[in-house]
Amino acid sequence: MIADRTDVTKMILAAKVERKLTWASVAKAVNLSKEWTTAGCLGQMTFSKEQAETIGKLFGLPDEAVAWLQIAPYRGSLPSAIPTDPLIYRWYEIVSVYGTTIKELISEEFGDGIMSAIDFSMNIEREPDLKGDRVRVVLSGKFLPYNSY
Amino acid sequence: MIADRTDVTKMILAAKVERKLTWASVAKAVNLSKEWTTAGCLGQMTFSKEQAETIGKLFGLPDEAVAWLQIAPYRGSLPSAIPTDPLIYRWYEIVSVYGTTIKELISEEFGDGIMSAIDFSMNIEREPDLKGDRVRVVLSGKFLPYNSY
Amino acid sequence: MIADRTDVTKMILAAKVERKLTWASVAKAVNLSKEWTTAGCLGQMTFSKEQAETIGKLFGLPDEAVAWLQIAPYRGSLPSAIPTDPLIYRWYEIVSVYGTTIKELISEEFGDGIMSAIDFSMNIEREPDLKGDRVRVVLSGKFLPYNSY
Amino acid sequence: MIADRTDVTKMILAAKVERKLTWASVAKAVNLSKEWTTAGCLGQMTFSKEQAETIGKLFGLPDEAVAWLQIAPYRGSLPSAIPTDPLIYRWYEIVSVYGTTIKELISEEFGDGIMSAIDFSMNIEREPDLKGDRVRVVLSGKFLPYNSY
Amino acid sequence: MIADRTDVTKMILAAKVERKLTWASVAKAVNLSKEWTTAGCLGQMTFSKEQAETIGKLFGLPDEAVAWLQIAPYRGSLPSAIPTDPLIYRWYEIVSVYGTTIKELISEEFGDGIMSAIDFSMNIEREPDLKGDRVRVVLSGKFLPYNSY
Amino acid sequence: MIADRTDVTKMILAAKVERKLTWASVAKAVNLSKEWTTAGCLGQMTFSKEQAETIGKLFGLPDEAVAWLQIAPYRGSLPSAIPTDPLIYRWYEIVSVYGTTIKELISEEFGDGIMSAIDFSMNIEREPDLKGDRVRVVLSGKFLPYNSY
Amino acid sequence: MIADRTDVTKMILAAKVERKLTWASVAKAVNLSKEWTTAGCLGQMTFSKEQAETIGKLFGLPDEAVAWLQIAPYRGSLPSAIPTDPLIYRWYEIVSVYGTTIKELISEEFGDGIMSAIDFSMNIEREPDLKGDRVRVVLSGKFLPYNSY
Amino acid sequence: MIADRTDVTKMILAAKVERKLTWASVAKAVNLSKEWTTAGCLGQMTFSKEQAETIGKLFGLPDEAVAWLQIAPYRGSLPSAIPTDPLIYRWYEIVSVYGTTIKELISEEFGDGIMSAIDFSMNIEREPDLKGDRVRVVLSGKFLPYNSY
Amino acid sequence: MIADRTDVTKMILAAKVERKLTWASVAKAVNLSKEWTTAGCLGQMTFSKEQAETIGKLFGLPDEAVAWLQIAPYRGSLPSAIPTDPLIYRWYEIVSVYGTTIKELISEEFGDGIMSAIDFSMNIEREPDLKGDRVRVVLSGKFLPYNSY
Amino acid sequence: MIADRTDVTKMILAAKVERKLTWASVAKAVNLSKEWTTAGCLGQMTFSKEQAETIGKLFGLPDEAVAWLQIAPYRGSLPSAIPTDPLIYRWYEIVSVYGTTIKELISEEFGDGIMSAIDFSMNIEREPDLKGDRVRVVLSGKFLPYNSY
Repeated sequence: MIADRTDVTKMILAAKVERKLTWASVAKAVNLSKEWTTAGCLGQMTFSKEQAETIGKLFGLPDEAVAWLQIAPYRGSLPSAIPTDPLIYRWYEIVSVYGTTIKELISEEFGDGIMSAIDFSMNIEREPDLKGDRVRVVLSGKFLPYNSY
Repeated sequence: MIADRTDVTKMILAAKVERKLTWASVAKAVNLSKEWTTAGCLGQMTFSKEQAETIGKLFGLPDEAVAWLQIAPYRGSLPSAIPTDPLIYRWYEIVSVYGTTIKELISEEFGDGIMSAIDFSMNIEREPDLKGDRVRVVLSGKFLPYNSY
Repeated sequence: MIADRTDVTKMILAAKVERKLTWASVAKAVNLSKEWTTAGCLGQMTFSKEQAETIGKLFGLPDEAVAWLQIAPYRGSLPSAIPTDPLIYRWYEIVSVYGTTIKELISEEFGDGIMSAIDFSMNIEREPDLKGDRVRVVLSGKFLPYNSY
Repeated sequence: MIADRTDVTKMILAAKVERKLTWASVAKAVNLSKEWTTAGCLGQMTFSKEQAETIGKLFGLPDEAVAWLQIAPYRGSLPSAIPTDPLIYRWYEIVSVYGTTIKELISEEFGDGIMSAIDFSMNIEREPDLKGDRVRVVLSGKFLPYNSY
Repeated sequence: MIADRTDVTKMILAAKVERKLTWASVAKAVNLSKEWTTAGCLGQMTFSKEQAETIGKLFGLPDEAVAWLQIAPYRGSLPSAIPTDPLIYRWYEIVSVYGTTIKELISEEFGDGIMSAIDFSMNIEREPDLKGDRVRVVLSGKFLPYNSY
Repeated sequence: MIADRTDVTKMILAAKVERKLTWASVAKAVNLSKEWTTAGCLGQMTFSKEQAETIGKLFGLPDEAVAWLQIAPYRGSLPSAIPTDPLIYRWYEIVSVYGTTIKELISEEFGDGIMSAIDFSMNIEREPDLKGDRVRVVLSGKFLPYNSY
Repeated sequence: MIADRTDVTKMILAAKVERKLTWASVAKAVNLSKEWTTAGCLGQMTFSKEQAETIGKLFGLPDEAVAWLQIAPYRGSLPSAIPTDPLIYRWYEIVSVYGTTIKELISEEFGDGIMSAIDFSMNIEREPDLKGDRVRVVLSGKFLPYNSY
Repeated sequence: MIADRTDVTKMILAAKVERKLTWASVAKAVNLSKEWTTAGCLGQMTFSKEQAETIGKLFGLPDEAVAWLQIAPYRGSLPSAIPTDPLIYRWYEIVSVYGTTIKELISEEFGDGIMSAIDFSMNIEREPDLKGDRVRVVLSGKFLPYNSY
Repeated sequence: MIADRTDVTKMILAAKVERKLTWASVAKAVNLSKEWTTAGCLGQMTFSKEQAETIGKLFGLPDEAVAWLQIAPYRGSLPSAIPTDPLIYRWYEIVSVYGTTIKELISEEFGDGIMSAIDFSMNIEREPDLKGDRVRVVLSGKFLPYNSY
Repeated sequence: MIADRTDVTKMILAAKVERKLTWASVAKAVNLSKEWTTAGCLGQMTFSKEQAETIGKLFGLPDEAVAWLQIAPYRGSLPSAIPTDPLIYRWYEIVSVYGTTIKELISEEFGDGIMSAIDFSMNIEREPDLKGDRVRVVLSGKFLPYNSY
């Protein structure tokens, strides 16, 4: 019995190691960005029936797992509120150090509101640099204003 | 007596309200990006002597506060580990939902290592969109590999 | 010196006690719902210049406070992550007990996405009932779908 | 051996995926609202013998599970005090941002007391809207006054 | 400026020390139980205008404080989620050790529901005992059933 | 292998569901109060050899479980420091709201000390009431004074 | 205005530094052990009228402070649940490492029950040792058995 | 596969129940104090090869478990930072209430430093007393001074 | 199925006990420092294919485990945010006591920036000393300056 | 009134900014290492009378502050259990990532015991490096074995 989406994520991760797949190739197979596809495989997004079946074949998942991939998951990918993994912690640190700055600048440009994390996309790529290549991440989220009523 | 950098940040925020300054104009005055300048004014970065004096004049700060602006601050801008402000929480949510995805994709592209939050820059701008303008944020951090020794 | 919006909220609450104002009358004065107006007075919403000046007169606030009312506040009105006040705790309890139910039913009706807490309104009113009057609250939030990209 | 109600909830969720049931159809079968029925299936409410047997048939549960459905469960449906799932977090955010507002307005209308989360009902439905459909939720809880003694 | 009810509680406690009042005598003056009266003085209950004025005279409170006593307070009297004071901790311990027992026995007697903490009264008294006197506390709370809808 | 008392508690709860026993009947069988007996079955008290054997027969426990029932358990029956179950939370709320009141009144009556949670008994019963029956709980704990030395 | 016992503790600590008093001499003046006396001065015990007046004279406290010394304090002397000071942490560590051991051995010797922290005394002294003197602490607490009822 | 020392502790506890051993007899068999021996069996100390083999025979442990007993364990015997078991909590309470007192008195006698929890021993015994026997615990830890460098 | 790197770490630890390997000998076999090698075996570093195969042979790991050793792990080796094990806690204590000192001195010497924990190495060795041998640890981390942009 | 050592630390930090002192020069004035001296000025160590007077002159402290410098402080220099400042967090990260490694290697070299954080010294210096200078930190702590008793 598969009790929740977490079980499916574990199956995918174990199969990825065994089958030596890359996230880029999985993304190509479902014809979506590597960011969204990876998030989906890690239990954070919902696949369509067709996408789920493709994923199922690539990772050799049972039918039950393919069904779970099509259901809205309980999101949140980290084992603790403050992440311990250094790569992920650096992102937490950016939020901690720059959080009030981001708020001030979005407010100054757009007025009071938020940057959506739902109507949102992310792109991660290599930025060549002589002093050492950089990770370049573009985040794009719709501005949603607070309105009075 | 100014006990720590937090006191200077409060002075700056109060003066900003009173003097109706914008972060963009402050940034122009010190000839730096609005992102870095705002972070500095909010107590997260260290200004050079010249920059601090300019900031001091703009906000009408006492000499003691200008001196504090030149000293490495204890960083961290948020009052709680999990931010309650919706705009800032959305960023925490991105880390929570996409954290493992970001790790997988950086590892796939670069190998084992991190994206630096120190050798780092951020750019926040408006992305016009017919369905509603978007907030576009570009993060650039040097890739730092884990090496064996 | 007013250091942040919290100081303004305290001024408003103290003045409300002293001047025996009601939230309903304040709302009428700014011509908005009592829910949004109260949230604004309690430091959770941003007033326009005109609204802020009206609020300022009603509560007898200094100009500096009136300026702060027009600035996007750091939101979050509670002193602890799990509220201790019984009235507010009951709402936390509803989230705790019905949280997964709400998720299942919104997903079943709309697909994968969220109910916005920004493009959102709330209405609180008395529902007469022979067995004891009830509090009737209507929440309306725009559905925001997760889309693949 | 079924150790607690959580085990039954897992069985129901797994069977729902496998049998492609909807909460609405389950609710119809037991002749109750979809909100209460879903909460019950997710381990938050107690079913009568007859209801439990109907649920048991629909999901193909063993007798032992049917017995557990008739016993008052240890309530609380979330894995952490602050929910990580964005849909559920938005509700937590509403409590955080509007908590003191709700308290003020209920007190102004009813006097000192609470809105019951026990003598309580909830209704979730689609609110068609040209700018994008909305989730409309009606909460109704009995007002319970604090009395002196 | 009195910023919240907590300030009034501090005034009352300081005045009680100075004026050597007893809670029993305060209760008698407002003609209510010593339990409810003490809870009110400690910031947990709302007094009527007449009661508040009596309290105000007894403790020598300013008018502003008397006004605050008539407003529904943000409840919760303890400085930490798990109390450190041994007397109060023993009560937390009773909840921790007997919590599931209390739930089982109320459910067995009344069915699924709760014991109200709002429609509630408490009585604390001395129970003479040869082996050492005992504290006898009687709690009475209305049973509120969960009903389906 | 039974690793700790928690395993025995799970066996008892599962057997209780299966055998449709009541706590009152179990208490009668061991000739003790229903409160103490239930607490014992839920892993919070230590049974004598004879009592444990009776419990073992009623619930159909293996010898190993019967042995564990006679050993002082690691107490604490709740899965989190702040209980999420509404019935049990109401008790936590009573401690939170009335905690300082209880301390003041015990101190006023007895002097500085505590009410024991060890030399302690509890009685839960139905209190008929026309406006709805009430849960009446009597707690009796020995007063233990702080003495100087 | 002295708002609580904590204020008195701060006065005593400041006066002790200024007047260069030792705890041993204070204890002698009130004719009690240095352990109990120090705990009292640090806000954890209640002094009799006579003792409080002696303490008041030694530390030069105002009458209001002397009155507070005679009132049962809210106990707990540490600023965080897990102490950061190394000396005090070592005691927390002893509880963490030896906690289950202490429970097992008291249970083996006395049966199920606790060692009282109220009917309790402590003695701290120097234990000369050639390899470096040792701190010798004797704790004595009455055994309180759990009894069935 | 035994994954860590915790697994061995569970085996020992289960075997102790089954074989009705006492800690005192185990201590005698390895010729050490009952305090140290019990702590070792509960996963907090490291046994020599010979001691481990004796323990292994007494509890009927497999060779793998005997090997684990000779390896430095990850210490800490409690399931939560603040213990819920009343007997162990009383020790936490002593640290909480007397923590600053212990620090003051050790500092007054020895100067700035700590009492070691490593070069440490503990002795737990019965102290007969007409008013009820007492638990007498002697702790002895080497004083370690802070030195400047 | 191996679900994550933690499973591999458990296998390695169990095999180390059984095969009586030393970390020093494992390090020699992969021709790296004992510090890095041990961290890798404990799930904190990524091995090359060749290194992983050597590790696999030494510990008798299945192919699947050898594959996992070559994948960037989710780092963080401790079961709680504040470690309970005394040896590891001492390091946490050093960070707590000396944290601000380290920051001040690095800032004074290098300016505002950090000491990298990625471009980092550690060396642990015995420092003979007549008063008792010492643990000598050398940490070396690249200084990374904060630069304005 | 200076209430605790924290107040003295604030005075020192404010004076250091105003008088533009360096920690190195302060250390030279008291003839001790810069590490220990800085820790002392930041409220973590106890100065001798002579040292305290020198510190007092350098920073222009009142006599009361000089007296506080000679008293064992409540140690712990950070505002939260997990530090938010990136420089200090990197050290927390080293403990988190390398914690179990450090334990394994000290145990392998010395047997079961700890590295003292009291009989301890630290040295921070610049390590020139063509690829960017490094921070080199040497920690030396006495090994303290666990002994049986």
